[in-house]
Amino acid sequence: MQPDPVLAKIDETLPEATERLLDLLRIPSISTDPAFAASCDAAADWLVADLESLGMAAQKHPTPGHPMVVAKTPNMGDESLPHVLFYGHYDVQPVDPLDLWDRPPFEPALEETAKGTVIRGRGASDDKGQLMTFVEACRAWIAVHGALPLRITFFFEGEEESGSPSLVPFMREHADLLKADLALICDTGLFGEETPAIVTSLRGLLGEEITIRAADRDLHSGMYGGIARNPAHVLAAIIADLHDGEGRVTLPGFYDGVPELSEARRAQWEALDFDAAAFLGEVGLAIPAGEKGRMGLEMIWSRPTAEVNGMESGYTGEGFKTVLPAEARAKISFRLVGDQDPLKIHEAFRAFVRERLPGDCHVEFAGHGASPAAVMRTENPAFEKARAALSQEWPREAAFVGCGGSIPIAGHFREILGMDALLTGFGKDDDNIHSPNEKYDLSSFHKGIRSWARIIAALAP
Amino acid sequence: MQPDPVLAKIDETLPEATERLLDLLRIPSISTDPAFAASCDAAADWLVADLESLGMAAQKHPTPGHPMVVAKTPNMGDESLPHVLFYGHYDVQPVDPLDLWDRPPFEPALEETAKGTVIRGRGASDDKGQLMTFVEACRAWIAVHGALPLRITFFFEGEEESGSPSLVPFMREHADLLKADLALICDTGLFGEETPAIVTSLRGLLGEEITIRAADRDLHSGMYGGIARNPAHVLAAIIADLHDGEGRVTLPGFYDGVPELSEARRAQWEALDFDAAAFLGEVGLAIPAGEKGRMGLEMIWSRPTAEVNGMESGYTGEGFKTVLPAEARAKISFRLVGDQDPLKIHEAFRAFVRERLPGDCHVEFAGHGASPAAVMRTENPAFEKARAALSQEWPREAAFVGCGGSIPIAGHFREILGMDALLTGFGKDDDNIHSPNEKYDLSSFHKGIRSWARIIAALAP
Repeated sequence: MQPDPVLAKIDETLPEATERLLDLLRIPSISTDPAFAASCDAAADWLVADLESLGMAAQKHPTPGHPMVVAKTPNMGDESLPHVLFYGHYDVQPVDPLDLWDRPPFEPALEETAKGTVIRGRGASDDKGQLMTFVEACRAWIAVHGALPLRITFFFEGEEESGSPSLVPFMREHADLLKADLALICDTGLFGEETPAIVTSLRGLLGEEITIRAADRDLHSGMYGGIARNPAHVLAAIIADLHDGEGRVTLPGFYDGVPELSEARRAQWEALDFDAAAFLGEVGLAIPAGEKGRMGLEMIWSRPTAEVNGMESGYTGEGFKTVLPAEARAKISFRLVGDQDPLKIHEAFRAFVRERLPGDCHVEFAGHGASPAAVMRTENPAFEKARAALSQEWPREAAFVGCGGSIPIAGHFREILGMDALLTGFGKDDDNIHSPNEKYDLSSFHKGIRSWARIIAALAP
Repeated sequence: MQPDPVLAKIDETLPEATERLLDLLRIPSISTDPAFAASCDAAADWLVADLESLGMAAQKHPTPGHPMVVAKTPNMGDESLPHVLFYGHYDVQPVDPLDLWDRPPFEPALEETAKGTVIRGRGASDDKGQLMTFVEACRAWIAVHGALPLRITFFFEGEEESGSPSLVPFMREHADLLKADLALICDTGLFGEETPAIVTSLRGLLGEEITIRAADRDLHSGMYGGIARNPAHVLAAIIADLHDGEGRVTLPGFYDGVPELSEARRAQWEALDFDAAAFLGEVGLAIPAGEKGRMGLEMIWSRPTAEVNGMESGYTGEGFKTVLPAEARAKISFRLVGDQDPLKIHEAFRAFVRERLPGDCHVEFAGHGASPAAVMRTENPAFEKARAALSQEWPREAAFVGCGGSIPIAGHFREILGMDALLTGFGKDDDNIHSPNEKYDLSSFHKGIRSWARIIAALAP
């Protein structure tokens, strides 16, 4: 199915689409602050009304927190059409510190900048602007063809920026309402300025905390120094032992289930021309510090890690106290990839610590979550279709990319609803999401709408 | 000179001596609390009056803090007599928490306990009781012989428990007043229950703080984990490298100037039957953790150490944050012995850290003091004379012992007044100094007075 007349419609109606987005951005739907609960509700109502105007059967569903919006195309009875679920979130981050904004965060406007026109306002990029790219693509399609060539369920959440407490219960309770063939998620970004990206792997996360205790109290380092065990030294040795000279994690079995990149994926990633020094330069670093012999993108997307997130022992205030600490603590997280088993690594880590514990020391463990990596089944033909569609819209070929962090919803769709999730989006690194002066490039919005029109066409029978 | 008649006098007048001590203990001379300044002054007045009653020329010297008391025997003109300076302090520690005391801390009394009669009250052991052992020995000597066989300068401080801010300036200003052949200090304890001890070495102290910085902000461990340098790992590796598998410090040149024990000293220390496991057992440990192949007393008295006193990096609060820290900090102290040069070790440590710093990391150093070990010149015959005198009084032979910590006054006497300091005392480990229910065994007081009478006799011509 050729999307050309729809694309022309999109170009022609961009001013109206932009006005609609500005209207939605005026609603201060900050989910984490109870003072804005009515605004969250208003944003949900706005979406219900907009989707109903497109002929959808739309409904606001109450939750213990903010409401969910679920809407469906009228063609649900036509089982010959593929069925996709589109997910986005209508809630936004808080706006503090307010004095760093150049305009009121909920009085959005188009601004001309050296890099082009931007839509400025809280939520412009994360996620109202991205969410509306899909809605506008549907609107244009309906305007041209009268109906969409897919069955589509729209699913909008209002708690994404505050931990999504209602999401999993709602998904479990309304599995029949939400189940589709494939989930589409628009909450990620371009790679660089003009390379569209589909996130096909997300690293998992294992959080561990250890507390090593020696003496039953802090000791005087003059009286006991040299004869009493110092747990800070024990902890330091354990942390130092966690990596070898090549930057690899030394836990036995740690790399079980870690796949090597396929040749195709490696070629795609090499073509991205990732500049590790420039990436690190933004935070004051220059030298990739991970496993030797791995390219930068592997280090952050497809290799597992062990990182100390925090450690503490003894006296850490101003000045000096010659105390010999009674205990030393560390929080350590492991980013997981491929088929690494979080529980096996959890056990391997605890055994590793116990083996290095001298007599006279005790260890206490605490777990802070264990989730495996999410690896999308890119053999699902929808992925290649979407990639081809994106490549037609943008100056550079679309890539299957990884994501170093976690996007829990992708795992939930797989686990609860048994469907793959195709994550793509049009945000840019300089969008200031979660920060003052959030913006979304007008070109991201425009080409994002066009991208979805192309993907809808590509997925249609 | 035989002390026997003096000893008999001491035995006979013990009740009166005890009453005098109780009288002094009733003065709440807490030096660190300005509310008790008048009491500190009153304690100084009490000592002046008591020393004058012995025929001394005694004077209270004002300082910016609490006054010093200096008194001299009338025989100062007789240069044929050795001249000793006796040092003690009349100020005491605060008494909090008051509700843990079994009696009001400044209403002292004799109490019968399972282990014998004790003098209970704040300052009973530290240092009023110890100070008075010397004064009472002088009193008995004068009562028997009419005059002391030594020239004696008494020097009492009132700021020892609050950092002695006036001490060094006063010593420098009044060097002529204080200069003697030898200093005697009574502010230490017996070794165990019945072995008198002369402290002949005190470890020095070098304090270092390092802050290692990598990125210019805390990073998201999902986004940057695996490619960005983690300064907590760098710090842990440096700390782990500081000791080898034998428990030795690995800084180049660290052991320069560290003497081996003489055969005589080793035999003395072995005779002390130090039970390292019992010593460690009091703080919940059991296994000496220092240098392999060293006896326990060496580890704490005559071997140098490197100990982490505190370290901190990243998120250390409740729960978990997947932050990749921007910096990691540690406070590290070195206990020094023999002729170790604090400045050389300071330089060696900083070089050691710099050598282990990967590209992209920066280190900031801060110094927290550098003082060498104090080693007494035990070839001064006074030391062997005092040791023999103590051995006659107590059930076990007196020992030259070390002290793992620092007693700054010993160094000041050497540096400012050019005299050796002979440190002995009769406190016990269970005296609860600095804690509620401080006590001094009546036997410590009684045999302490007798010990000083014997030492005075031994030092007399």
